[in-house]
Amino acid sequence: MVTPKGDIGLIGLAVMGQNLILNAADKGFTVVAYNRTVSKVDHFLDNEAKGKSIIGAHSIEDLIANLKRPRRIILLVKAGKPVDDFINQLLPHLDQGDIVIDGGNSHFPDTNRRYEELKQKGILFVGSGVSGGEEGARYGPSLMPGGHPDAWPHIKEIFQSIAAKSNGEPCCDWVGEAGAGHYVKMVHNGIEYGDMQLICEAYDLMKRVGKFSNKEIGDVFSQWNKGVLDSFLIEITRDILYFNDPTDGKPLLEKILDSAGQKGTGKWTAINALDLGMPVTLIGEAVFARCLSALKSERVRASGLLDGPVTEGNESPIKDKKAFIDNLEQALYASKIISYAQGFMVIREAAKEYGWKLNNPAIALMWRGGCIIRSVFLAEITSAYRQNPDLENLLFHPFFNEAIKKAQKGWRETVALAFTSGVPVPAFSTALSFYDGYRSARLPANLLQAQRDYFGAHTFKVLPGQENDYLKGDWIHVNWTGKGGNVSASTYDA
Amino acid sequence: MVTPKGDIGLIGLAVMGQNLILNAADKGFTVVAYNRTVSKVDHFLDNEAKGKSIIGAHSIEDLIANLKRPRRIILLVKAGKPVDDFINQLLPHLDQGDIVIDGGNSHFPDTNRRYEELKQKGILFVGSGVSGGEEGARYGPSLMPGGHPDAWPHIKEIFQSIAAKSNGEPCCDWVGEAGAGHYVKMVHNGIEYGDMQLICEAYDLMKRVGKFSNKEIGDVFSQWNKGVLDSFLIEITRDILYFNDPTDGKPLLEKILDSAGQKGTGKWTAINALDLGMPVTLIGEAVFARCLSALKSERVRASGLLDGPVTEGNESPIKDKKAFIDNLEQALYASKIISYAQGFMVIREAAKEYGWKLNNPAIALMWRGGCIIRSVFLAEITSAYRQNPDLENLLFHPFFNEAIKKAQKGWRETVALAFTSGVPVPAFSTALSFYDGYRSARLPANLLQAQRDYFGAHTFKVLPGQENDYLKGDWIHVNWTGKGGNVSASTYDA
Repeated sequence: MVTPKGDIGLIGLAVMGQNLILNAADKGFTVVAYNRTVSKVDHFLDNEAKGKSIIGAHSIEDLIANLKRPRRIILLVKAGKPVDDFINQLLPHLDQGDIVIDGGNSHFPDTNRRYEELKQKGILFVGSGVSGGEEGARYGPSLMPGGHPDAWPHIKEIFQSIAAKSNGEPCCDWVGEAGAGHYVKMVHNGIEYGDMQLICEAYDLMKRVGKFSNKEIGDVFSQWNKGVLDSFLIEITRDILYFNDPTDGKPLLEKILDSAGQKGTGKWTAINALDLGMPVTLIGEAVFARCLSALKSERVRASGLLDGPVTEGNESPIKDKKAFIDNLEQALYASKIISYAQGFMVIREAAKEYGWKLNNPAIALMWRGGCIIRSVFLAEITSAYRQNPDLENLLFHPFFNEAIKKAQKGWRETVALAFTSGVPVPAFSTALSFYDGYRSARLPANLLQAQRDYFGAHTFKVLPGQENDYLKGDWIHVNWTGKGGNVSASTYDA
Repeated sequence: MVTPKGDIGLIGLAVMGQNLILNAADKGFTVVAYNRTVSKVDHFLDNEAKGKSIIGAHSIEDLIANLKRPRRIILLVKAGKPVDDFINQLLPHLDQGDIVIDGGNSHFPDTNRRYEELKQKGILFVGSGVSGGEEGARYGPSLMPGGHPDAWPHIKEIFQSIAAKSNGEPCCDWVGEAGAGHYVKMVHNGIEYGDMQLICEAYDLMKRVGKFSNKEIGDVFSQWNKGVLDSFLIEITRDILYFNDPTDGKPLLEKILDSAGQKGTGKWTAINALDLGMPVTLIGEAVFARCLSALKSERVRASGLLDGPVTEGNESPIKDKKAFIDNLEQALYASKIISYAQGFMVIREAAKEYGWKLNNPAIALMWRGGCIIRSVFLAEITSAYRQNPDLENLLFHPFFNEAIKKAQKGWRETVALAFTSGVPVPAFSTALSFYDGYRSARLPANLLQAQRDYFGAHTFKVLPGQENDYLKGDWIHVNWTGKGGNVSASTYDA
C-alpha cells in the first residue's frame, strides 16, 4: 500500500467543485476528486485538471485510500438528501477525528442536525458557506466555516489559502459552532438578494423615469463603482449594461426575461427573521419582488387593466439629471446601510437564540472579498466592528450614522419621486420606512395594543410613569365598551 | 342510563369557550361544558351559565355520556400540544363517525396531520377558524370550518345558527378539506394584521404630521366609518381615540406602551406566502412592523442618535386639512384593496398547491360579519367573486379597478408626504410598490437574471421573439467576461 498523498478530498464536480479543486491545486495542495457519475472525473482529469496535483477517484473507497489523516472531505453537492446520502456512504470508511465538510448551500437546521449526529460518531462535521460563484471558487472564494471547533486547526491552512484576500487578510475565519457557518452564509445570501434588488430599482428608475439608454446607465454604474458603492455587484452591473448582443449590437439585457426564481436562501433568511422576530424588511421585500417578477403573464395582463402614471414614451420628467443621479446614489447607499444593519440585527438575535458566539468583525471581513457582496463598504463595517465588537447597531457607529445623515435628502426625494412616477421601489422604500420607524421613540403600536385589548381582551402595558389606580398591574385590560365580560384572554389567542 | 341531551360538547372554558357556549345555548342548543381545571366548570355553571341549556361535565367520560350521537365535540384550547392531548384523551371514548372539532388557532399543517390521523380511525376531524374575539364568540362569530366533508351535514345547523349574519346570510360555510378551514383563518388573521397596521399608519400621520388631537383623529375615523372604510376595526379605533382615562380625563391611548407581539398567525401567513412564492408584502410588512415596535428600548436609544425630519412640536406643515384627510382615506382604502387582493392571491395558490377546492365568494362572505375584519368592503368582494368565481385577481374586477383608479392620487401623495416628513408608512408604501410592480409588464428582474448568470452561470430565458443564433435554447448562459468557464450551474446553486 502506497502512502496516501491527498491533502483534501472533494465530492461533486459541478462548476463550483471543479473550480475549488483547481484553486486548491494552484495553492500547492493535492486534491482527490470524486463524482457520482464517474465519467465526469475522467473528463475533468483529462482536461481542466491535467498536469495539476489532482488525483481522480473512481469510488468512495478510492477517495478514502488516497487521503492523509485526519481525512478532510468536502462535499459540494446539491443541498438536501444528496448530502445525507454521501455522508452515509462515507461513514463506514471514516475513522474517529476525520473531518467531513459540507460546502453546499445547506439550510442551517440541517447542518445543526448533521453536526450532532456525526459528533456522536466521533466525526468532526463542518458546514461551510462558500460564496463567489464560479469565479470566486476558482480564484478565491469567501469561506464561512462553522461546526466542530476541533476541525478548524486541521482545515485552517487549506481554507485560508484558497480563500480570497482583502488587504492581505484571508476572507475566511471560524464562524462558530454547529450550523453557524451556514447560518451566516444564509444571511449573506439574503443580503445579496437585497443588494441585487436595490440595484434593479436604481436601473429601473434610470430607465423608466430618467429615460436613460443602457450605455448611459452603464456609465452611471461605472461612476458609482469609483465611490462609496464600489463593489462587485455594481461592477458587473456596469458590464452587463455595456454588453450588446453580437448578433445585432443591441443591449442584451433588454432581451432577457424579467422573471426571477426565489426558492433559496433569501427566502430562508426572511423566514428566519420572521421566526426570530427581527424586522429584516429589505430582504423580505427583495424576496417578494422576485415572487412578483415570476408572475410575468399575470403582470402583462394587469398592465393592460390597471391605471397609473405613464412611464412609456421617451420624454423624461427629470430636469436636473445630475441631481437625479446623485439622489439615486444616496438612496442606494442609504438603503444598503439599512440592509446590512438589519442583517447584523438578525445575526445578533440568532447568536442569542442558538447559543453561538459569533465574531462580527470576522463576519464582515469574510464578506469583504471573494463573495458576491464584496465591497469597499464591508471594509467600513469590518472596521466599525473591530472598533467596537459589541456595537448594538451599525447605524449607531459614527461612520454610518454620518453617512445616513448625508444621504437622507436624496434618499427621501428618490423614494417620493418613484411613488409619484409610478415605478415600484419596494426595497428603497422599506429601508426608509424602517429607518424612520427605528428612530421613532414612539410608534403607533399603542393603538394596535388597544385594538387587541378591545376585541380580544389581550391586555396591554402602559408607558413608564403612567400607572394609576385605574391603570394598575403589569398587563391591563380595560372594558372599552361598557358591555361584555371582564375575562382577559389568558389561554386562548383569538 | 338516561338518554343523552347534549347537542354539542365544548372543551376549554376560557373567554372564547364560555362565550361560544352561551351563544349556542341562546340559539336553543344544549351544550356540555368541560374544562381541565374542573372548578372552572362549576364556577361557570353557577354564574354565566345559570338557567341556560348548559350541562357541566366533570370528566371526559361525563362529557361523552352526555352527548347525542354522532358526538360533536369542539376543542377551544391553546393550539399545539393541548389539542393533541385532548384528542388522545377523547379517542378511547369515541365511536366511528363521531366528530371532533378544533376551534382553536391551530396551524393548518397540524390540522392536515390530525385530519389524516383521525380519518384512519374513523373519526371525522374538523378544523374551524373562529374569529370575532370575545364579543364575536358571544353574539355571532365568523366560523370557517374545514376538514372531513362528512362532518359538515352534522354540524352545519349548529355552526350556521351561532355564526354572525350578514344581510341574513350566515358568515359560515364549508371551506374545504383537511386543513383548509384553519388555512383560511390564518390568512384572515394575516389580513387583520395588515388592516390594523394600516389604521396605525393613518393615526400616526394624523398625530405626527397633522398634529391632530385624539378627539380630532377620533372624529376622522368616525367620519370614515360612514364611507367606504365602514368596518369593525375603524369603529373600535374611533372608540379607542375617544376613550379617556377616568383618572385624569386624558386620552388613554397615549398612555399605552407601543410594543406589540407577533408570534402568531400573521407570521404564519407571511412564511406561507414566502413558501408558496406569493408576494403578500403588506402582511409581511405588518408583521415586521410589530417586530420593530417590540424593540422599544433600542428605538428609544436610536431616536437620540439618528437624524431625520423633525416631527416634534405643535406646528403642522399641513395647509389643507381636508385634502390631507381625504388623501389619507384614499391611501388607506387603496392599500386595503391591495392587501385583500394579495390575500386572495395566496389563497388561490394554496388551493392549487394543497389540492383544495375553495369557494372564494363563501370565504369573503364568512369574513363579511362576525370577525375582526368585518366590513362593508367585504360585501363588495363577495359580490365580485359571486359575479365571477374564477376572477384572476380582485384588482381586475371593475369595482376595485375603478376604486384604485380614483384613490391613486391621494394614495401617492400621502406616501410621498410620509417619506418627506419622516414618518414610517411600511404598509401604505409596500402596497403602492406592489401595485406599481403588478401593473408593470416589465420589471427590472431581467437585470437580476443577468447578474445571476454573470456570477453563477445560472442561465436565463429571453423574451418571446428575441431568440437568435447567439441566444438559443430554453435556458441560456452567456460568457459575460470572456474569462472563466462555460459550465452552467446545473446542480450547485451558489
